[in-house]
Amino acid sequence: MKAEIITIGDELLIGQVVDTNSAYMGQKLSEWGITLHQITSVHDDAEHIRQALTEALARVDIVLCTGGLGPTKDDITKQTFCDFFHTHLIEDESVKVHIHRLYAHRPNVLNRFTATQWLVPANCTVIQNDVGSAPIMLWETLTPHNSCLIALPGVPYEMQYAMEHRVGEYLQNLAGRGTILHRTLLVTGIPESTLAIQIEDWENALPPHMHVAYLPKDGVIRLRLTASRDSIYGVSKNVSKEELQQETDAQIAALLPLLKDHLLATEDLPLEVLVGRKLKEKHLTVASAESCTGGKIAEALNRYAGSSAFYYGSVVAYDNSVKQNVLGVTAESLQTHGAVSESVVRQMAEGAKRLLKTDYALATSGIAGPDGGTTEKPVGTVWIALATPTETIARCFHLGKLREQITDRATTQALIMLLRALDE
Amino acid sequence: MKAEIITIGDELLIGQVVDTNSAYMGQKLSEWGITLHQITSVHDDAEHIRQALTEALARVDIVLCTGGLGPTKDDITKQTFCDFFHTHLIEDESVKVHIHRLYAHRPNVLNRFTATQWLVPANCTVIQNDVGSAPIMLWETLTPHNSCLIALPGVPYEMQYAMEHRVGEYLQNLAGRGTILHRTLLVTGIPESTLAIQIEDWENALPPHMHVAYLPKDGVIRLRLTASRDSIYGVSKNVSKEELQQETDAQIAALLPLLKDHLLATEDLPLEVLVGRKLKEKHLTVASAESCTGGKIAEALNRYAGSSAFYYGSVVAYDNSVKQNVLGVTAESLQTHGAVSESVVRQMAEGAKRLLKTDYALATSGIAGPDGGTTEKPVGTVWIALATPTETIARCFHLGKLREQITDRATTQALIMLLRALDE
Repeated sequence: MKAEIITIGDELLIGQVVDTNSAYMGQKLSEWGITLHQITSVHDDAEHIRQALTEALARVDIVLCTGGLGPTKDDITKQTFCDFFHTHLIEDESVKVHIHRLYAHRPNVLNRFTATQWLVPANCTVIQNDVGSAPIMLWETLTPHNSCLIALPGVPYEMQYAMEHRVGEYLQNLAGRGTILHRTLLVTGIPESTLAIQIEDWENALPPHMHVAYLPKDGVIRLRLTASRDSIYGVSKNVSKEELQQETDAQIAALLPLLKDHLLATEDLPLEVLVGRKLKEKHLTVASAESCTGGKIAEALNRYAGSSAFYYGSVVAYDNSVKQNVLGVTAESLQTHGAVSESVVRQMAEGAKRLLKTDYALATSGIAGPDGGTTEKPVGTVWIALATPTETIARCFHLGKLREQITDRATTQALIMLLRALDE
Repeated sequence: MKAEIITIGDELLIGQVVDTNSAYMGQKLSEWGITLHQITSVHDDAEHIRQALTEALARVDIVLCTGGLGPTKDDITKQTFCDFFHTHLIEDESVKVHIHRLYAHRPNVLNRFTATQWLVPANCTVIQNDVGSAPIMLWETLTPHNSCLIALPGVPYEMQYAMEHRVGEYLQNLAGRGTILHRTLLVTGIPESTLAIQIEDWENALPPHMHVAYLPKDGVIRLRLTASRDSIYGVSKNVSKEELQQETDAQIAALLPLLKDHLLATEDLPLEVLVGRKLKEKHLTVASAESCTGGKIAEALNRYAGSSAFYYGSVVAYDNSVKQNVLGVTAESLQTHGAVSESVVRQMAEGAKRLLKTDYALATSGIAGPDGGTTEKPVGTVWIALATPTETIARCFHLGKLREQITDRATTQALIMLLRALDE
């Protein structure tokens, strides 16, 4: 079972908006055993949308469209579908009722533009969008080979809700026995090419329905093993999901010893989730004192529900006055060693641990650029400290040349430092 | 002059990675007067890549590929180009020298996988990638109508550097006199459909080579006017860039009064940049005290170079103990009114202003969910306060149902509150 995604909107092509929807949909389709064959982003242009639809429907079984379903004049997706299917727009009573309920407390929104939201192509099946005003639309058993087409709202929260709660079951039923398994390991402290050599014999011995991908980012390599019953590479293997799972487990078991202490985790989870889980298990708490990362560690630790169990707070100490007055860094250290120094970053971590009364505290101080670099401390120099219940450790990193790169990598390295300490 | 982007990588189609590269490239192409016609994401599969290449080269003048240029076995882009052009890989001496210099201090990286990085298809022009190991490759005057093909590295920092410093001038020369102008206004406090009615007459009177798009997100609508000499909608107008600029200015001038006080800004810049610029101009400083936003405001204010001029620091006070001990919120207020209350959020803002010695301080306290909601304070309830040099203002918002949605919107509303205060 193969799918394609068509994302519609000029804003995607002029780079005003990053297409995050496709990644979310790709993840869900993959979970459901559906191979996403291609993603195509096209303009709000009727002819272009029609062409993309025709091509996609000829290639795959399921076509998912997002975007262009809003109430304003630039949203032409519904009319284009009508032209494509030689039909016309009709009022849908169920959508009308839903929208009236949705805006019951804001009657001024119920104007004639909003009223276009309950118009749908006459030949589609309407699926209610509980969290927004643009209905989900389904067309089944389309030529040439019974493909189906689903139009989803482009607003990410609404699209995610629709995939999860409205069309997920339908697509999983369509997918039937299709099976794709992904297993991802997180590896750190080793260059991609060195890792490739280290696991080369294992990789070369993989059966043809399995393959490996390397995804390096900010100092962590996500090493992915993909196994497929109906492979995207045309190799089919008639095994059950359970058999495929066992085969994959055996390959991973053979791989693990080759990774030595570079292995960071055996699941494809954000570092902050791994850290949060460990802290929760052990009933421990963490805080951060951030200069160059400016709140990125706080934001990461705090991103997921349930963080209040292990996360108390942070001090973003960008200015030296805050390092001194709030975290208790000595003026002498700042003068003698500078803000980007082992002495200062240790005091920041210890200050945060003391002030916020936590078991652990991370601290960062670095030169994120573009200015402020010296010969001795070039742009990219970052000191990171971790205060633990028993000691404070600190390490100096050189993390690149570009501001965002440096602060992203510093956040990653700080979380790795904490994860390693919690593993000990 | 039209372009297409082909992004290559299984990780994009199984949703392991969000394609941020296309948006960056789309923005640059648009700046340079090149219309991006389509973005296509395909698997690391030779046949699929070949098909996408053939189709794109037949449709447009410029095809940009990213991804699949790494040193490991899953990277097949270069070999696929060889097959496509009926040629073979050769060693490129300049790339070899560059890579040896790049890894001079890490000789262990110079293994046989890395050595594949200086192999390139025999018929391409090599452009040096100064910040990474994967060379940029160019093919010119390809059939059927002199299209060109450029392969760029997939690592975002490297791709951005390549676009800006390595292929930008070449592409701008190709583009010649092509002109697309975008003007974006930021509008807030009005539903999309109400705005559409408010500006309907103006929008309907636009000439055919201009059109409007509405991009609502987190309470701000980005209202974009696009004018094109060689329109993406097939309407051509033989005017100079200056004339087009004047026409656009006139239309914007006619639009502004219709937006009344919903207008937030006349440039498409992130709110944190607008806020930062205002603070810098007025030599004022800001801090934040964040509960539910957990560092998002700090991270936003701190994202761009030069923030040290106006941003001193923040306290992320997730736990009530931090609100009390660090920010000086009274135990009585926390008990009587709860953490999510006007009284507490005012004390948080005033506490941060006092502690961090700034002119302004923003504070947030809300219920981000999924748990913690009550009938009186459902999930999505957020109190935001702004302490100014003369007073403290506070406002209660209801910002949706989903954690990320709520914290993103709260960050946006806090920045709007500050921007409005600075405008007064």
